[in-house]
Amino acid sequence: MNFYSDNVAGAAPEVLAALAEGAAGAMASYGADPVTARVTDRIAEIFETELAVFPVATGTAGNALAMSVLCPPFGAVYCHAGSHAHVDECGAPEFYTGGAKLVPLDGADGKIAAADLARALDHGGAGDVHHVQPAALSITQLSECGTTYTVDEIAALADTAHRHGLGVHMDGARFANALVALGCTPAEMTWKAGIDILTMGGTKNGCMAAEALVVFKPELARELGFRRKRAGHLFSKMRFLSLQLEAYLADDLWLRLAAHANAQAGRLAAGLRAVPGVEIAYPVDGNQLFVAFPPAVREGLAAAGFGYSTWDERLTRLVCAFNTDPAHVDAFIATTARLSEQAA
Amino acid sequence: MNFYSDNVAGAAPEVLAALAEGAAGAMASYGADPVTARVTDRIAEIFETELAVFPVATGTAGNALAMSVLCPPFGAVYCHAGSHAHVDECGAPEFYTGGAKLVPLDGADGKIAAADLARALDHGGAGDVHHVQPAALSITQLSECGTTYTVDEIAALADTAHRHGLGVHMDGARFANALVALGCTPAEMTWKAGIDILTMGGTKNGCMAAEALVVFKPELARELGFRRKRAGHLFSKMRFLSLQLEAYLADDLWLRLAAHANAQAGRLAAGLRAVPGVEIAYPVDGNQLFVAFPPAVREGLAAAGFGYSTWDERLTRLVCAFNTDPAHVDAFIATTARLSEQAA
Amino acid sequence: MNFYSDNVAGAAPEVLAALAEGAAGAMASYGADPVTARVTDRIAEIFETELAVFPVATGTAGNALAMSVLCPPFGAVYCHAGSHAHVDECGAPEFYTGGAKLVPLDGADGKIAAADLARALDHGGAGDVHHVQPAALSITQLSECGTTYTVDEIAALADTAHRHGLGVHMDGARFANALVALGCTPAEMTWKAGIDILTMGGTKNGCMAAEALVVFKPELARELGFRRKRAGHLFSKMRFLSLQLEAYLADDLWLRLAAHANAQAGRLAAGLRAVPGVEIAYPVDGNQLFVAFPPAVREGLAAAGFGYSTWDERLTRLVCAFNTDPAHVDAFIATTARLSEQAA
Amino acid sequence: MNFYSDNVAGAAPEVLAALAEGAAGAMASYGADPVTARVTDRIAEIFETELAVFPVATGTAGNALAMSVLCPPFGAVYCHAGSHAHVDECGAPEFYTGGAKLVPLDGADGKIAAADLARALDHGGAGDVHHVQPAALSITQLSECGTTYTVDEIAALADTAHRHGLGVHMDGARFANALVALGCTPAEMTWKAGIDILTMGGTKNGCMAAEALVVFKPELARELGFRRKRAGHLFSKMRFLSLQLEAYLADDLWLRLAAHANAQAGRLAAGLRAVPGVEIAYPVDGNQLFVAFPPAVREGLAAAGFGYSTWDERLTRLVCAFNTDPAHVDAFIATTARLSEQAA
Repeated sequence: MNFYSDNVAGAAPEVLAALAEGAAGAMASYGADPVTARVTDRIAEIFETELAVFPVATGTAGNALAMSVLCPPFGAVYCHAGSHAHVDECGAPEFYTGGAKLVPLDGADGKIAAADLARALDHGGAGDVHHVQPAALSITQLSECGTTYTVDEIAALADTAHRHGLGVHMDGARFANALVALGCTPAEMTWKAGIDILTMGGTKNGCMAAEALVVFKPELARELGFRRKRAGHLFSKMRFLSLQLEAYLADDLWLRLAAHANAQAGRLAAGLRAVPGVEIAYPVDGNQLFVAFPPAVREGLAAAGFGYSTWDERLTRLVCAFNTDPAHVDAFIATTARLSEQAA
Repeated sequence: MNFYSDNVAGAAPEVLAALAEGAAGAMASYGADPVTARVTDRIAEIFETELAVFPVATGTAGNALAMSVLCPPFGAVYCHAGSHAHVDECGAPEFYTGGAKLVPLDGADGKIAAADLARALDHGGAGDVHHVQPAALSITQLSECGTTYTVDEIAALADTAHRHGLGVHMDGARFANALVALGCTPAEMTWKAGIDILTMGGTKNGCMAAEALVVFKPELARELGFRRKRAGHLFSKMRFLSLQLEAYLADDLWLRLAAHANAQAGRLAAGLRAVPGVEIAYPVDGNQLFVAFPPAVREGLAAAGFGYSTWDERLTRLVCAFNTDPAHVDAFIATTARLSEQAA
Repeated sequence: MNFYSDNVAGAAPEVLAALAEGAAGAMASYGADPVTARVTDRIAEIFETELAVFPVATGTAGNALAMSVLCPPFGAVYCHAGSHAHVDECGAPEFYTGGAKLVPLDGADGKIAAADLARALDHGGAGDVHHVQPAALSITQLSECGTTYTVDEIAALADTAHRHGLGVHMDGARFANALVALGCTPAEMTWKAGIDILTMGGTKNGCMAAEALVVFKPELARELGFRRKRAGHLFSKMRFLSLQLEAYLADDLWLRLAAHANAQAGRLAAGLRAVPGVEIAYPVDGNQLFVAFPPAVREGLAAAGFGYSTWDERLTRLVCAFNTDPAHVDAFIATTARLSEQAA
Repeated sequence: MNFYSDNVAGAAPEVLAALAEGAAGAMASYGADPVTARVTDRIAEIFETELAVFPVATGTAGNALAMSVLCPPFGAVYCHAGSHAHVDECGAPEFYTGGAKLVPLDGADGKIAAADLARALDHGGAGDVHHVQPAALSITQLSECGTTYTVDEIAALADTAHRHGLGVHMDGARFANALVALGCTPAEMTWKAGIDILTMGGTKNGCMAAEALVVFKPELARELGFRRKRAGHLFSKMRFLSLQLEAYLADDLWLRLAAHANAQAGRLAAGLRAVPGVEIAYPVDGNQLFVAFPPAVREGLAAAGFGYSTWDERLTRLVCAFNTDPAHVDAFIATTARLSEQAA
């Protein structure tokens, strides 16, 4: 009964079956195989546009590679102060860009407001040789607070960024969860709103280790093959990345898995809201909750064997996955209620 | 019937089964899972010493990470002129080290001679501020010509390197093939001979994408966790790397797979040597052959549907894998004989 | 009548004379000359300790080189949010460290409080593979607000840093101005208070282009020669850097020049404080003032031919140099008074 | 009587006088001063074309900055195996490019032959993701063997490079010596022959520390200001770099100084050729000689107080400078003759 993160989950049976099935026979290496070609076509179909796809195994690799083609070594990437790329990647963006600077922006509910971005860029030192040059905006959808940017919010941010000459990256580690939450199309949530390059996550939502770096602007794709290889992220047996993505994107599996995770998070949120003394910090748009438990309740939950992530002194993060058992959700709620009563 | 490379092969059934089996249930992420702990113990057992293990998904990542802890940005890594790290990794060592220089050394049969290394180091500019500083030696076992360094050759190279203050890395993309060929222990072929850090390949020999970066000197391990994360090579669902390695190293599967590949290469070499006009370029120690075919024969083989790698104008590389079908080997030999006769 | 910065000033006659005198005759290149040896001895004498000296031509080079030996690529340098290294060096620290992160700390009067540093380090993620690792503290003396850290403040900061395993760098672009202001010894303001490495500025205080990177910990000096050369900062005709420093440090010239600049800033501050509607923002410890003029006054000063730096919408920076003419100071005060009266 | 290098010489009186004269008065910093503007105009006049100029203090900085705008991190710079950038800059090109690879080419007399470059580029792996991508050619004029490329040779090399999509850099550490030797115009030796960016040396030929990075292609200039600042090579008191260059380029001083140096080298060569047992290794086109002395003579010259550079076991390098005293040349010849006689 582990709500620590969606990366403590395993992989979807469909994904595992695809690997087993696709393992037979010789196949061209380094991405020249037919599975990779089919995955690219499938992603183009999903996004209703021409694009380039670079499968990689981790979100950090995807994000850092994306930034490396948006931002020169003397550039700056604007991002939320709590963003994974800034806080949790041990400096991967700095490594891949050759030493660019991440400029953290504050913003409610884990989201950057377009007006705040505009204000920051007005003082961003563009053209001044003494300052790193504003080059990219990176937003996270689902945000690190479990909230979604609306399509309009994305468009306002991208528009602000583009007017200042920045490229726009979306860290979509939980892309499917956000998409399901908004109920829009992949195209609407990305390139139609101004996203130039997207890390489309698969790992957290049922893959073993597979993300698709999706490039909507052809000129950004030119260097990526070289940069991916140079970073050690070009798989020789690429089929094993692509097979995951193919199964993940077939028959709307990815959307069904995300819908399940979101539903469980909603169920969990509804149950916890009914418990006195328990507070939920941000809108629960996707599959994550940030909850303020009374300290005794938080400790009690751990003692009862529930896994969770201690976000800070006040907040606990709970994440539902593609395979979260509704019975676990109900047990969590019931235990919380019991502990809360005892504490009262 | 594809002899292009061992990376056109799929994965061993045992590896795939382990993934399917280990996918159930929640498990701590980022390497804190029990599978990863067991793999480390197993590798320590295999090498009969204390060591640190960092699973990664590609050999390029393993090699480049190894060099990044052996060599400062102003350093030099000595390697064979034909080595994968120098020629085929799009500058990954330079990227990971922050701009070190690779110093290519010539040497017969894809191997560096200790005397040549010594001579190079005597003119290596150590201590002179104008020159990059000799910091590491990297050797490949199986070499890029399919040959093995003997244990004594490794020891002589490592000794020369250590006397000049260099650390020693072994690129073991085909480690198992070399080990089986030499018939020595993993310890004898590595740390007992002076290897400080090893990229122990699994991918080419039956894994999907799994290599173990094995560190014999504790002080080299200190930075590796950070550098791996920063490079995007720390898998969140690490179990899926470790499950591959666990299955690979269980019940001597790895050695059996390598023995099979080597045997098929030997069978292929024996068959081709009997064909007039066909020459084999280097000793066939492991699972690779470099063959000089008459041009018409080479073309005929492609036309007949055989996959191979065009090494240069003269040489063709043929690689046998863990799952190469002996019938394919025999067909290759027979076709070569037939084409050779026609050409005569 | 230019108060824009101390770098709009030329060079002290003594420095120019030394260059002219030392230009004759052949002299060993790349720092093997006797002038450089004498400068090192002189600096050791000034600081009353053994140390290593690396002359460079710019403060940015000195700062970035210092950080490159204190902080690994996956590390973090803690500094004031307004520090030159963070704001005004176009990412030089990131470049030289191979992509480390600068962590900006707020603090009154341009100074970091030890308690704030401690609090930041308590949440700095030390040992956690997901976060850049706290590695260095960099403080600026004179700060970017023209204030001085007291010896006790420096010691408290360095002690906090050292207890967390960080090395401590002082950006002493205006080192002499701070020293004169505090009236302590160079040793007291640096290594006795816990500074490990110092960029000791000469350029702003009468040299043409000369800074001394002063290393108090021998192990930090080991890599610096290579890193300086690799960065293109090892002068072939090194004598021309060292001659500047030699003249600068002879007969207390550096202290006299700084005392003059500080005195003029004091005179300017005193005069401006007497003008109604004019406010001075920070303590005027050295040779810089940050002044809030009524808008009409600020514009009038420019129109009257006075050079200044527009710090932000409210504040104007005025800097006095080693050769600032007291008559210019008096003219500035008088003009301000006149403009203020007109505006009233 | 030091023939070790032209960097053991001091600076020309005209250059020193210009510094002294230009030091008075306030002047805008960081290159916004009128001297820097005049220098740019003067260089445009000399090269008879529009161009951008970035003054820096060292040749290593100039070369590495030039490569950083010609070559991406995953690129390769082709250069002579003996080139300064490859051998003597402690990896500066790798640092500035973010880890590009230098590809050393052999070639007689320190020069690359266009046919050899073409052959190397034909196997350069362009477009193949596994290999670093050919991006730039860097040639040295005067070469490291003291020889000049003819204008036709430069054009053939640049044409080969451009046809393969490479940019072309000239390391002109001894640009004036080569120009005087060839008797052509600066334009003919550079952009008219296909040079895209030039490090035009001043230091070795009478400046203290001043080189001009001259950019003939506007698009290459766009990033250079940021990269120079970020590398710590933007001088705050830029006038002191520009004053050197202004004096150096006024009244053909630079050509007169180079002509003097070349003439002394010619005189030295002529004298030494007459000494039995003494051999001169390469054409003496400029101000450098590479001489094979009998061992006893070489030792005797050192004992007699002559400075020289021990190039290798066989060759001794002798360099004449802008201020080499003809009497020293004659003394060197006479001493060699005497020692040779004694040794016979």
